[in-house]
Amino acid sequence: MKKIVVIGATGTLGQAVSAELKARHEVIEAGATRGTHRVDSTDPASIERLFREIGKVDGVVTTTGKLHFGPLPEMSIEQFWIGLRDKLMGQINVVLAAQQYVNDGGSFTLTSGIVGDEPIRLGANATTVNLALEGFVRGAAIELPRGIRINVVSPTVLTESLDAYAPYFRGFEPVTAQRAALAYLRSVEGAQTGRVYRVGY
Amino acid sequence: MKKIVVIGATGTLGQAVSAELKARHEVIEAGATRGTHRVDSTDPASIERLFREIGKVDGVVTTTGKLHFGPLPEMSIEQFWIGLRDKLMGQINVVLAAQQYVNDGGSFTLTSGIVGDEPIRLGANATTVNLALEGFVRGAAIELPRGIRINVVSPTVLTESLDAYAPYFRGFEPVTAQRAALAYLRSVEGAQTGRVYRVGY
Ligand SMILES: NC(=O)c1ccc[n+]([C@@H]2O[C@H](COP(=O)([O-])OP(=O)(O)OC[C@H]3O[C@@H](n4cnc5c(N)ncnc54)[C@H](OP(=O)(O)O)[C@@H]3O)[C@@H](O)[C@H]2O)c1
Ligand SMILES: NC(=O)c1ccc[n+]([C@@H]2O[C@H](COP(=O)([O-])OP(=O)(O)OC[C@H]3O[C@@H](n4cnc5c(N)ncnc54)[C@H](OP(=O)(O)O)[C@@H]3O)[C@@H](O)[C@H]2O)c1
Repeated sequence: MKKIVVIGATGTLGQAVSAELKARHEVIEAGATRGTHRVDSTDPASIERLFREIGKVDGVVTTTGKLHFGPLPEMSIEQFWIGLRDKLMGQINVVLAAQQYVNDGGSFTLTSGIVGDEPIRLGANATTVNLALEGFVRGAAIELPRGIRINVVSPTVLTESLDAYAPYFRGFEPVTAQRAALAYLRSVEGAQTGRVYRVGY
Repeated sequence: MKKIVVIGATGTLGQAVSAELKARHEVIEAGATRGTHRVDSTDPASIERLFREIGKVDGVVTTTGKLHFGPLPEMSIEQFWIGLRDKLMGQINVVLAAQQYVNDGGSFTLTSGIVGDEPIRLGANATTVNLALEGFVRGAAIELPRGIRINVVSPTVLTESLDAYAPYFRGFEPVTAQRAALAYLRSVEGAQTGRVYRVGY
């Protein structure tokens, strides 16, 4: 049994990931406005506070992250920053701040998404941020100390999110959040590092 | 003959790119502290000013960008922001601000680097930023209007930069800046879009 903190545990994807991990692990569920623990991953001090509260862990999973969707010809620089500050640095902040709280041989598992590989209309910010996360994982994997691993899960659109996202993803086959959650399990319990786990494509 | 602005034209790579383009094109050379035109690509107002000065162009090339190199276990969030603000958003700012100044069928050519594909020690910020740029190009290519293309050149380490960078790149075969410059020519004069031109690896 490992002690795993899921940041974003109250979200569509995070709920499924937490449920899947709970079968065999102690799971600490953190959300921004819900959940037993609260954290703002865009604020380093808030991450520090969370880890001082919960102490050392064997695994950190992040399933957070806002992006900006909009047409490139009208995209402002300020809009572009949304994805960088929230989805990209929100997850990188967690790794930078939490690495000292992860036990030897522990793991980080981040979240990107299919739009990194498959660009869509209005999606330039998402494609940038998702590939940036995959780059971070590739770079961090060879540098993390004490056998700590890091991977990223890139799911296609979730069945549970189709109400909101279907118009962006015509012809994309969705997966359930529960199926996407399996990839987090592979990352947490597996032995690989620097991997992108693509789910549903 | 096309009218091409090279932002970063005064640098090691940019000088070679400008020289190569000048053989057949009108080249406007912009640098931060040198060059006939000055621009700070981290400052949207400064980019706007440059394009109001020079008017419409057929091509925009960027060969700019600072990164932070340092060990991941000690990397601060503030250090990580350096590459995002400078190399990543410096180039994306140019695309967002300049798209309206690019003629129909014109092009953007940005710069990433081998560390996106080949992670090195101290390089997590570089791998992140370089892949983010490749993601941006992938996303923007399908959205740019009026037949405007966008590509990115990813060179290996330059022969001219070995004095400074050799310790990071043991065993990497360098290329001359002039050879790297050819890829910019392929992007500017070619017909492809959304491409990564890898040079020397
Ligand atoms: N949904 C999809 O179809 C899909 C597909 C591929 C990839 N993804 C990616 O998966 C991730 C999660 O998506 P989702 O649909 O599950 O989103 P969601 O339902 O909106 O859940 C977001 C989660 O993140 C938390 N959160 C928001 N801002 C936060 C902050 N500043 N600090 C810490 N936690 C924060 C939320 O907490 P509270 O709810 O407690 O406020 C919630 O737990 C995103 O990166 C998304 O791009 C989603
Ligand atoms: N050198 C290599 O081995 C190598 C290999 C692969 C990739 N790259 C990438 O290629 C790019 C250029 O590298 P380089 O070695 O040629 O760098 P460099 O010699 O330092 O040149 C940088 C250029 O960018 C300009 N610049 C700096 N800050 C700027 C700003 N805020 N706004 C506008 N222009 C700015 C500089 O202007 P001034 O000089 O006029 O101040 C100069 O023209 C970087 O993205 C680098 O990561 C380099």
